[in-house]
Amino acid sequence: MTTPRNDPTEIPADLVSGAARRLAHYAHLTPVLTSHTLDAKCGGKIFFKCENFQRVGAFKFRGAMNAVLQLTDAEKAQGVITHSSGNHAQALALAGQLLGIPVCVVMPSNAPEVKRAATAGYGARIVSCEPTLAAREAAVALESAKHGYVLIHPFDDWRVIGGQGTAAWELLDQAGHLDIIITPCGGGGLLSGTALAAHTKSPHTRVIGAEPERADDARRSLEAGTILPSGDPKTIADGLRTSLGQRSFHVIQRHVDQIVTATEAEIIDALRFVTERMKILIEPSCAVPVAPILTGKLDVHGKRVGVILSGGNLDLQPLFQALSERWL
Amino acid sequence: MTTPRNDPTEIPADLVSGAARRLAHYAHLTPVLTSHTLDAKCGGKIFFKCENFQRVGAFKFRGAMNAVLQLTDAEKAQGVITHSSGNHAQALALAGQLLGIPVCVVMPSNAPEVKRAATAGYGARIVSCEPTLAAREAAVALESAKHGYVLIHPFDDWRVIGGQGTAAWELLDQAGHLDIIITPCGGGGLLSGTALAAHTKSPHTRVIGAEPERADDARRSLEAGTILPSGDPKTIADGLRTSLGQRSFHVIQRHVDQIVTATEAEIIDALRFVTERMKILIEPSCAVPVAPILTGKLDVHGKRVGVILSGGNLDLQPLFQALSERWL
Repeated sequence: MTTPRNDPTEIPADLVSGAARRLAHYAHLTPVLTSHTLDAKCGGKIFFKCENFQRVGAFKFRGAMNAVLQLTDAEKAQGVITHSSGNHAQALALAGQLLGIPVCVVMPSNAPEVKRAATAGYGARIVSCEPTLAAREAAVALESAKHGYVLIHPFDDWRVIGGQGTAAWELLDQAGHLDIIITPCGGGGLLSGTALAAHTKSPHTRVIGAEPERADDARRSLEAGTILPSGDPKTIADGLRTSLGQRSFHVIQRHVDQIVTATEAEIIDALRFVTERMKILIEPSCAVPVAPILTGKLDVHGKRVGVILSGGNLDLQPLFQALSERWL
Repeated sequence: MTTPRNDPTEIPADLVSGAARRLAHYAHLTPVLTSHTLDAKCGGKIFFKCENFQRVGAFKFRGAMNAVLQLTDAEKAQGVITHSSGNHAQALALAGQLLGIPVCVVMPSNAPEVKRAATAGYGARIVSCEPTLAAREAAVALESAKHGYVLIHPFDDWRVIGGQGTAAWELLDQAGHLDIIITPCGGGGLLSGTALAAHTKSPHTRVIGAEPERADDARRSLEAGTILPSGDPKTIADGLRTSLGQRSFHVIQRHVDQIVTATEAEIIDALRFVTERMKILIEPSCAVPVAPILTGKLDVHGKRVGVILSGGNLDLQPLFQALSERWL
């Protein structure tokens, strides 16, 4: 049984505009950058919305914060839980810390120590489990039963989707008219939130999702008309290994124009272009929407194109190991 | 014999303000970033002037462009020359390209291919020489005699120093009052230009230079009252291996309050902090002024401090090699 707020096929009204009002005092208004070199290369005008400069280094803060801000006082007292080894864990931990709400994060035992430390650094309680989806879900169920935690799903939650959409909502103010907005697509929270933002604020803007060729569940699901998950895809774009949720699929079917894909080599080339030429750090997932612009697979000639750079949590250990070996 | 413009002990009037007017249409007005995490750590308020986002990825464009803009028509027709394997080469090449002036760059035969290609990409003619200072200077003399090129020295030139000072000139507008401005110090062009900018625009701002402990010629020279070059220092901060020039030393003696130094480990830690936490790419040289703030060697408690992030030309090859090996 679902309440209207949670019905996966009923998109709540004012989802993104409400989130934008709610987040105004909490999320950074991230800058928009451009690149002469890229524009000359692709013949379009590209606007990068820099969510790598967002709190916790990723757009995920928007969705987590928007969800937590809408809890009832009783829910706030109980606390929240999620399972994630990625940006959503840190995002929820910070959101809880800012509002004084207990946060529990279930993490697989093989999660990188640096992510565990970062999440704990924001005051979250961390519960370890075996690195399988079944074990994660069992641990969440057990902890929730024991402590009464409210689950904040990383993407299959309207409050989270609404929050993620606020990046595009801001971008449309900052960049002016856009012909296209393109975002990475993993669980589809960012893509569906972006599609709802554009649908409300700029209905003629085409919204496009970008996936790794090796994790193309959104492309296949749209073709099939039903969710076809990706299994355990092997891609450098670690944020895009998850498959669509019911709510994101529902929105994407209605409001997303196209899904484009990128090979691993194209993703690495795009990552290299953005880091070396634009001097900003992005994670592999957000190189995915840049790749089809660089290769020309997506024709943007004469177009104004917004790209959501979703986050900056790139592991630089290989670089620092090389530098330390050489200089220390 | 030196003309007044070139007298190393006579600082030309309006050096930085004139450069700022001249560069307004050519250089990017680079953004100023802040970091909550760093401010909480050091107890001050730090303003980073992001010259890593400058054209060619470094402040060096300012000095080179300011110099080239002041050439006579006859000099412009003859063209310019420099010897450099670093950012000044690319900066001069772009400055020449923008004004249609021939540029010749003498590069040691062991310069990285990527720098050679970048410089050639801006249309400069490249002359290779043996990797010694004597061979470089001989090649410059030979080419100048043959073609009548005008030498644009990377730092021992008032026009270059004036141009470099415009980064601080802008920062003082963008950040408001600053108690301290700190910059890296190699040949001293950036530090002396910054000191002149502050002296004119904000005389109560203390100007501090930062050097690698292994290349502390400015610190030693100031103590001795005479230029004591560093020889061939081994430091990761490749932009700071050069020693002071006559003009920069003259300014630094008069208008710089202090030189602080950083060990190689401190430089790498600071590089890691800025890249991982602020999500921007900087080169090792500009981690040097960040290091004493992070370690507390420079007490900035309660102070408003400007830091010139001089450039972003960090070699990411070890990172991309690791990513390619893992994913392709």
